[in-house]
Amino acid sequence: MRELERLFNPRTVAVVGATPKEGKVGNTLLRNLLRFEGEVYAVNPKYERVLGVRCFHSLREIPADVDLAVVAVPAHAVLGVLEECASLNIQNVVVISAGFKEAGKEGAALEAELVRICRRNGINLVGPNCLGVISTHARLNATFSKRMPPAGNIALLSQSGALILAVLDWAVQQHIGFSKVVSLGNKAVLDESDFLEFLASDAETDVVALYLESVEDGRRFMRIAEEIEKPVVVLKSGKTSAGARAASSHTGALAGSTEVFNAAMRQCGVATADSLEELFDYASTLSLLRGRLIRNIAIVTNSGGPGVLAADAVETFNLSLANFSRETLKKLRDALPEEANIYNPVDILGDADALRLGRALEIVASDENVDAVLVILTPTAPMDFEKASDVLLKVNSACKVACFIGGESVKDAVARLRHAGIPNFFDPFRAVRAISVAKCRFRKKKRKEFRRFSVNREEVRRFIEHLREIRFEGVVGVEGFPLLEAYGIPVAPSGVARTSAEAVETARSIGFPVAMKILSPEIVHKSDVGCVKLNLRSEEEVEKAFHEIISRAEKYTTKIGGVLVQKMFSGGREVIVGMKRDMHFGPVVMFGLGGIFVEVFKDVSFRIAPISVEDAFEMLAETKSFSILKGARGEEPSDIEAIAEVLMRISQLCTDFPEITEIDINPLKVFERGCVALDFRMVVKL
Amino acid sequence: MRELERLFNPRTVAVVGATPKEGKVGNTLLRNLLRFEGEVYAVNPKYERVLGVRCFHSLREIPADVDLAVVAVPAHAVLGVLEECASLNIQNVVVISAGFKEAGKEGAALEAELVRICRRNGINLVGPNCLGVISTHARLNATFSKRMPPAGNIALLSQSGALILAVLDWAVQQHIGFSKVVSLGNKAVLDESDFLEFLASDAETDVVALYLESVEDGRRFMRIAEEIEKPVVVLKSGKTSAGARAASSHTGALAGSTEVFNAAMRQCGVATADSLEELFDYASTLSLLRGRLIRNIAIVTNSGGPGVLAADAVETFNLSLANFSRETLKKLRDALPEEANIYNPVDILGDADALRLGRALEIVASDENVDAVLVILTPTAPMDFEKASDVLLKVNSACKVACFIGGESVKDAVARLRHAGIPNFFDPFRAVRAISVAKCRFRKKKRKEFRRFSVNREEVRRFIEHLREIRFEGVVGVEGFPLLEAYGIPVAPSGVARTSAEAVETARSIGFPVAMKILSPEIVHKSDVGCVKLNLRSEEEVEKAFHEIISRAEKYTTKIGGVLVQKMFSGGREVIVGMKRDMHFGPVVMFGLGGIFVEVFKDVSFRIAPISVEDAFEMLAETKSFSILKGARGEEPSDIEAIAEVLMRISQLCTDFPEITEIDINPLKVFERGCVALDFRMVVKL
Repeated sequence: MRELERLFNPRTVAVVGATPKEGKVGNTLLRNLLRFEGEVYAVNPKYERVLGVRCFHSLREIPADVDLAVVAVPAHAVLGVLEECASLNIQNVVVISAGFKEAGKEGAALEAELVRICRRNGINLVGPNCLGVISTHARLNATFSKRMPPAGNIALLSQSGALILAVLDWAVQQHIGFSKVVSLGNKAVLDESDFLEFLASDAETDVVALYLESVEDGRRFMRIAEEIEKPVVVLKSGKTSAGARAASSHTGALAGSTEVFNAAMRQCGVATADSLEELFDYASTLSLLRGRLIRNIAIVTNSGGPGVLAADAVETFNLSLANFSRETLKKLRDALPEEANIYNPVDILGDADALRLGRALEIVASDENVDAVLVILTPTAPMDFEKASDVLLKVNSACKVACFIGGESVKDAVARLRHAGIPNFFDPFRAVRAISVAKCRFRKKKRKEFRRFSVNREEVRRFIEHLREIRFEGVVGVEGFPLLEAYGIPVAPSGVARTSAEAVETARSIGFPVAMKILSPEIVHKSDVGCVKLNLRSEEEVEKAFHEIISRAEKYTTKIGGVLVQKMFSGGREVIVGMKRDMHFGPVVMFGLGGIFVEVFKDVSFRIAPISVEDAFEMLAETKSFSILKGARGEEPSDIEAIAEVLMRISQLCTDFPEITEIDINPLKVFERGCVALDFRMVVKL
Repeated sequence: MRELERLFNPRTVAVVGATPKEGKVGNTLLRNLLRFEGEVYAVNPKYERVLGVRCFHSLREIPADVDLAVVAVPAHAVLGVLEECASLNIQNVVVISAGFKEAGKEGAALEAELVRICRRNGINLVGPNCLGVISTHARLNATFSKRMPPAGNIALLSQSGALILAVLDWAVQQHIGFSKVVSLGNKAVLDESDFLEFLASDAETDVVALYLESVEDGRRFMRIAEEIEKPVVVLKSGKTSAGARAASSHTGALAGSTEVFNAAMRQCGVATADSLEELFDYASTLSLLRGRLIRNIAIVTNSGGPGVLAADAVETFNLSLANFSRETLKKLRDALPEEANIYNPVDILGDADALRLGRALEIVASDENVDAVLVILTPTAPMDFEKASDVLLKVNSACKVACFIGGESVKDAVARLRHAGIPNFFDPFRAVRAISVAKCRFRKKKRKEFRRFSVNREEVRRFIEHLREIRFEGVVGVEGFPLLEAYGIPVAPSGVARTSAEAVETARSIGFPVAMKILSPEIVHKSDVGCVKLNLRSEEEVEKAFHEIISRAEKYTTKIGGVLVQKMFSGGREVIVGMKRDMHFGPVVMFGLGGIFVEVFKDVSFRIAPISVEDAFEMLAETKSFSILKGARGEEPSDIEAIAEVLMRISQLCTDFPEITEIDINPLKVFERGCVALDFRMVVKL
């Protein structure tokens, strides 16, 4: 792990490019650092003092060790500064300057050189092309944002500097507290994974919120996220481009970058947000909870309507309304007017004052079935919101969320709550959604069990070696069946026939009935053009089918590789197992119920390989059609374990052989006991 | 239509129960009415003057005609006041007082009497148990909320008074303008439909926003909503109880109250919101548009990240990024720096000022491919938000939405925009969602075509008459096939056999192959217990099947009605057509693709009967599995027209016979030409 402690807690900071010119980045930077309690130096050959701070002509002249250098000089001068940092053994550098990779070819070359210097000298580089870093507890604002947010326990990492500008401005107004804020910039050296790794053991951070446009090393990110004992929430942009990529397999077509990203985050226990609001709503709730789980909510309200809206949302977001204990109900009955509703959501009625609210809150919060308390108040005449916020602040509950619905009447109370870290929402639906993020446990890697099957790796190696020799790259069909067998995946007994005599011979050795289909790279949907024949029960039928298939195929193509003769399996269910490689996350394993379910409902699930036993079973259970596999309505259940095993074996195969870039087993036929691959397609890149 | 003009524009208002006691409803009411420009009278036998207003001992003593009486006296005294209103011919009365239906049996009796008086005397009654009404353009605040919202073009109807309190408080702060606000209370006389009908021709209202907990007369509401030429948005609470009801049919189980409500709203062109925020986000956008459609959005931003978030949301909400014309692109290229992105979303870069923003906005707004402009700004140093809001206000576009992301820096600019009716959102996702409500045209009834089939209504009448004679209520099975035939729905040739000889005889007359299944009210999933035999091709097979079915059935039940022998249809697709009666909307027709699609994916659609030709085809197209019916992947397409016709015929059947409360045709087998009902189940209540 990189030692980033001094980046966020430097004793000395130098601003390279400091300037007295108002409005310039080098001016704002230094101005922001005036409030920092450690030593601050300005560096600029043109000045002796800047904003009252002693200014040096170069870093070298500073009569102290510099823990952090913040660089805001033109791009072409940055390399020189970095060389100087290297020679002075300055380990933490933030490069604010733009004009690197984001600015075309020349900038990219500059950035490559920058990276080289940093790597060679072990420099922790933030940026370039970034806003800087903030460490509230150290009172360090090394950014050119004028806003210093309140100190809090949320760390924010953002790939967009503009977004940080906006969020800080908003955070000050809304009293949202942060521990650290990092503008990732071009992520030339330090990326989200490095900071996540550091934050894992940062005592000031309880929650990590990320805004990402890309993930540099998806697998490393997952590994770190799996280890971190803190909730992580991420908002990723760039969904639009997802569907654009052409794909040559089912799995490829279905595994868009968004689907893969979301599956990866689920797999490593990171919550995903769909919007900026959600990101901060979730982070706010999680910052209260310090890892506690929420399932059962108690709602206390002075108005029926909004109470019902919240109860609806509890159902929508798969939470539960807490079932109060008998004792709680008795206490509520005693404390509240007769017409009040003592069941959840508790309606303390429109004539309730803060005193009655307090009584009701104390009672429900002390019920051990209650994980979180949501208070929903409308501005009735008897409700004093200052007192109501007092009451809420005093209540002893791990998760208190407010929904004071109103404007002027609730404004001050809402601000008080926010100061105390209690989120308030105008909308009951949104309040419940914010709480719902805490319904999942953040999983830890240590609980995962990985199975490694004993396989014939050598055979696959030889197969691929052979392809390499004949310089074959592209699609391998059922002729790749031996690879599946080598990895312990059962395949249907089959043979390829080039003449009708061969077909009959093969059928006889396999045993009747058989299925036959054309082998041609140019006929994808074979059954659509009549090139599949099923349930052939005699030599005559096989012979006839062979001629029919060939003559139909010849209407479409001359590239005919023969006819596949395969043992016919009746009964069972068809599922798809697949794999593709994602640019950022590597091999992704896919599962789905066959045919129409995949095509029409896109009812598939993904996991990043290698997958654990738990992952494999979760993949199955995540699909809606899982109930069919389990044997809905008394039908024969399918062999779940067998499918899970195939998923794990495919995971092992693609982990072992990076040359295999896509796999479709479609269909894998699953029976009450066991399963068998009926068709196979893989893409090999050498 | 009730004449509600004087309710919202009275010349004279009397407050019955006015009191000088601070904090009492009768005091707040009168105080709020002091700002009203017409005549205001207080009524209370105890006082001569209240708050400087002349106070009369009774309504009778007022020396003028009273257009509107607002009543805030104890429940037991309300009837007396109403009798007095009736005798004085006061036509508009708002009863604020609680203690009626919501307060138990005694209150319900009081309310019934209240209704009687109003109906007898043609009194327009709002409430009881409500907050009152507001008419901003008339400067009338006849509620006990101290907040008078700004005047605007949104009318708000709410079944929760507390919600109005909250929304008014918030609206004042946020500068959301309303034309009328009505607290519906117990809806004893006037309900949402009455007000909607009035608002249809209210010149001050362009958008109607509703919060409902129930719909009194769903069909009337739909009829009025279909006629109204203004957008209507509704938030309905009370989803939680939806699933609770037991149901005896597929259709019954799937058509929960939420599903039916949403289908009904879609059918009559009303937009539905999932939350309070959505309700007002949608209303705000619609209030700008006056009926215009939005499809193509132009995004202009000074920061890449939030721009991408907005572009993602455009895809999520099925809108489009406008394709700029060549001319627009050229102009943008000339007006913006070289590094700027001139394609949608337009990135005017972080160093942009309001001037550059203005240039870009003018150019994209004048492109005729652009329906709406979304401006996303973060608080960069060069961006002056006051100027930015000026620029945005000046731009000539029908739909301008802002996303000024920030806190203090953007606050004043946001307030200025809101004053001018331009909504601002912190979150790009939410901004796009708000715009997306305007992507559907609000449909008008006149465009709908209804088909009335010539059917044998008499036969169904006789069938039901017979059931009435034998006092049969409950489930009718395939013995009801003649009803379907009478309504022109093809059914599979079938016969009921009580002996194996009868079975053979029936099979012979129908023709082989046949299917056979048990008839027993106690065996629901017949195939699960082996009581279905398919594809029987000879007399021997039929005889054997008969005995097998009977002997298996006898393990489960003694109630055996015989064995159904039915012509076997091979090929085709199975769909479900159903009907159930909803408490609020009456007969609801359901469509879904058969079996697993309905059970696992709940891929079904609903419409309230009678359904138009358009409705029938929309029902089909709304399901995800529609692509299968259309013939995915070169498979035989199903006869869409035939299914649509069955839906319309079922609609006609259930409209004609209210005694039929549930129908399942499951499956209806559909072929390339035509379709046929294979099983039937209906519930009759007499």
